[in-house]
Amino acid sequence: MRTRAAVAFQAGKPLEVIDVNLEGPKAGEVLVEVKATGICHTDEFTLSGADPEGAFPAILGHEGAGVVVDVGPGVKTLKKGDHVIPLYTPECRECDYCLNPKTNLCQAIRSTQGQGVMPDGTSRFSTLDGDSILHYMGCSTFSNYTVLPEIALAKVREDAPFDKICYIGCGVTTGIGAVINTAKVEAGSNCVVFGLGGIGLNVIQGLSRIAQADIIVGVDVNPAKKEMAEKFGMTHFVNPNEVEGDLVAHLVDITKGGADYSFDATGNTNVMRTALECAHKGWGESIIIGVAAAGAEISTRPFQLVTGRSWRGTAFGGARGRTDVPKIVDWYMDGKIEIDPMITHTMPLDDINKGFDLMHAGESIRAVVTY
Amino acid sequence: MRTRAAVAFQAGKPLEVIDVNLEGPKAGEVLVEVKATGICHTDEFTLSGADPEGAFPAILGHEGAGVVVDVGPGVKTLKKGDHVIPLYTPECRECDYCLNPKTNLCQAIRSTQGQGVMPDGTSRFSTLDGDSILHYMGCSTFSNYTVLPEIALAKVREDAPFDKICYIGCGVTTGIGAVINTAKVEAGSNCVVFGLGGIGLNVIQGLSRIAQADIIVGVDVNPAKKEMAEKFGMTHFVNPNEVEGDLVAHLVDITKGGADYSFDATGNTNVMRTALECAHKGWGESIIIGVAAAGAEISTRPFQLVTGRSWRGTAFGGARGRTDVPKIVDWYMDGKIEIDPMITHTMPLDDINKGFDLMHAGESIRAVVTY
Ligand SMILES: NC(=O)c1ccc[n+]([C@@H]2O[C@H](COP(=O)([O-])OP(=O)(O)OC[C@H]3O[C@@H](n4cnc5c(N)ncnc54)[C@H](O)[C@@H]3O)[C@@H](O)[C@H]2O)c1
Ligand SMILES: NC(=O)c1ccc[n+]([C@@H]2O[C@H](COP(=O)([O-])OP(=O)(O)OC[C@H]3O[C@@H](n4cnc5c(N)ncnc54)[C@H](O)[C@@H]3O)[C@@H](O)[C@H]2O)c1
Repeated sequence: MRTRAAVAFQAGKPLEVIDVNLEGPKAGEVLVEVKATGICHTDEFTLSGADPEGAFPAILGHEGAGVVVDVGPGVKTLKKGDHVIPLYTPECRECDYCLNPKTNLCQAIRSTQGQGVMPDGTSRFSTLDGDSILHYMGCSTFSNYTVLPEIALAKVREDAPFDKICYIGCGVTTGIGAVINTAKVEAGSNCVVFGLGGIGLNVIQGLSRIAQADIIVGVDVNPAKKEMAEKFGMTHFVNPNEVEGDLVAHLVDITKGGADYSFDATGNTNVMRTALECAHKGWGESIIIGVAAAGAEISTRPFQLVTGRSWRGTAFGGARGRTDVPKIVDWYMDGKIEIDPMITHTMPLDDINKGFDLMHAGESIRAVVTY
Repeated sequence: MRTRAAVAFQAGKPLEVIDVNLEGPKAGEVLVEVKATGICHTDEFTLSGADPEGAFPAILGHEGAGVVVDVGPGVKTLKKGDHVIPLYTPECRECDYCLNPKTNLCQAIRSTQGQGVMPDGTSRFSTLDGDSILHYMGCSTFSNYTVLPEIALAKVREDAPFDKICYIGCGVTTGIGAVINTAKVEAGSNCVVFGLGGIGLNVIQGLSRIAQADIIVGVDVNPAKKEMAEKFGMTHFVNPNEVEGDLVAHLVDITKGGADYSFDATGNTNVMRTALECAHKGWGESIIIGVAAAGAEISTRPFQLVTGRSWRGTAFGGARGRTDVPKIVDWYMDGKIEIDPMITHTMPLDDINKGFDLMHAGESIRAVVTY
């Protein structure tokens, strides 16, 4: 079949919205009509050329929601008409990783996904001239129709609006999951969140609405982020540029001795160090969510760890997609969490490059493409 | 009273074994006759002048065992004749730290202990000329008699030999505790231990005899360490100088995908990085035990953490001394763990500087002074 898609032909160049060929689903695969997709920093990271593993031409996009149109042979858990959210971290429920309760990093299709192809080693996308186009993070939601492995789709309720729940495919789950799955924040905890963008806001609502934290300090160099973060439950705002003296000491003071949990949602390795060092002596945990520039390293004195702090990280918020994503959709539909105020811009696929422009300008929290 | 003690008058100089004055115990304090004391790297670290917090003159030593001789007013849990092990990490059971199950770092007497004085701000030791001498780590076991706060003494069974159980005051508990309290290693885990000295050997026996780990890889640049480590349960030995190619890849290979838990017992920050990076993707935890040179920093790419490794540390093996040390003494007396082969040298106080020489020469695992 043919489908309309935004293709990244080259690093650093705008996407080209064109018609492409899409082969139907093979064994274990599912054809999905994408109804909406968010534009995330990771798409931008790859498109910019900064991602050392980025390969072109590819159809980017990994934060989508849609409807099953067709299933390949052997697909048992999904059928035509099911509403689904694509998962860049799949959940096969059979590999060593899925069977270990300590991780969500299913490895079932890891290597082919990393190479931009389906598990059989080939791509379903090609140009009208017949040149192969790569998949991206196993999702390629910047195409109106896409093919995914069955294990990379979470089935969700049918009354949930696509243009909002697409955000659960990455940002919402990453932020809330970092709180509940990775840090396992206890009620009454005092926490610090660095970076109040699309991810940080979801960390904040995970802390305030789900985990019931007490003190929730938000740290951002952009004071314009304060208002929205307060709506999501931030109790104290700190602009590092306005702190006289040592930022760590200031944060330790506000949190009455240090953060029980701190989160980096900036991707800046200096911020990651501050996040660790403002954690409470004896038990504070610092969780890295941000993706750093290629080659950048984190550092600290080992004494910080010997005196009881721990340094951890999270991918996709530690969530097991097929199991956890439907629950987060329920939380949204039940009003436990909010998404609508974070979807600041909506546009058709033809205008997708404007979504990237808004991100560069820092104007959007999330720009969503609706098909 | 007078007591014989080895006094550190100056950094970088040998200890001087002389008579000193010792005041009796004040409220909440206990007078202890030290029967034996180990010589640990931390004593050496301070004596050498490398410890930025080292202060002189002081009576070092923190790995002892002895008998209660007298108690000050208000002491309730100890009486004359009780056998005790001094605790450089006390356990008051009342501070915020003691009441938090995530840490063992009791802060009740932290600041005075750091300043080399008793909780009332004064020292009990002085020269015969009346000049004050500082306490060290709240213990000063390089003195035949010493005074400690009640909360810094673990009461232990009376049939246990002082010249062996003194080692439980630091090395044994640090190594075994890192395994059972900090890492909480599960049976069947695959582990890597860096540094097969006095601490590393105890990590190994904690893994093999208490935690029932499967693969236990020991890494040391000194091949002479292999034999003893095998006796304590090491299953594979790696000498980094003999590995062709990448050490991390080699260790990941031996542990079938990476260490579930890795331990640094070298104090070398490059080793700490290797220890983290050989931990298993998704769930591997690396525990820093070693004390690094002043100012040295650990580094890695944050991707190591985002993909599920965690970096932690441990002090005194995460043990709550008054609660846990008596249990470890029982394990020793019941033959669950071994200590005797690690006490490679015993000497009288007058020869204590020989104990430091043996350590420098790498000839001792533990040299113990008996009074
Ligand atoms: N681990 C994962 O699974 C995962 C998933 C998605 C995104 N991410 C990463 O999370 C990070 C945040 O993503 P986002 O979409 O929220 O980005 P964003 O650009 O919307 O937000 C980043 C925020 O950090 C602030 N900031 C920048 N430098 C700062 C500093 N020095 N101190 C304090 N604040 C600072 C910015 O002002 C901005 O508000 C990115 O690195 C992204 O790649 C990780
Ligand atoms: N965290 C705590 O509570 C605590 C308590 C006591 C001791 N320590 C620290 O633990 C560390 C170990 O103490 P120890 O008494 O076992 O010392 P040790 O000198 O007896 O043993 C260290 C071992 O590490 C080996 N080693 C050195 N460099 C190495 C390298 N690059 N690769 C592999 N092996 C290497 C040495 O050959 C030696 O066998 C020290 O740093 C000490 O200060 C920490």
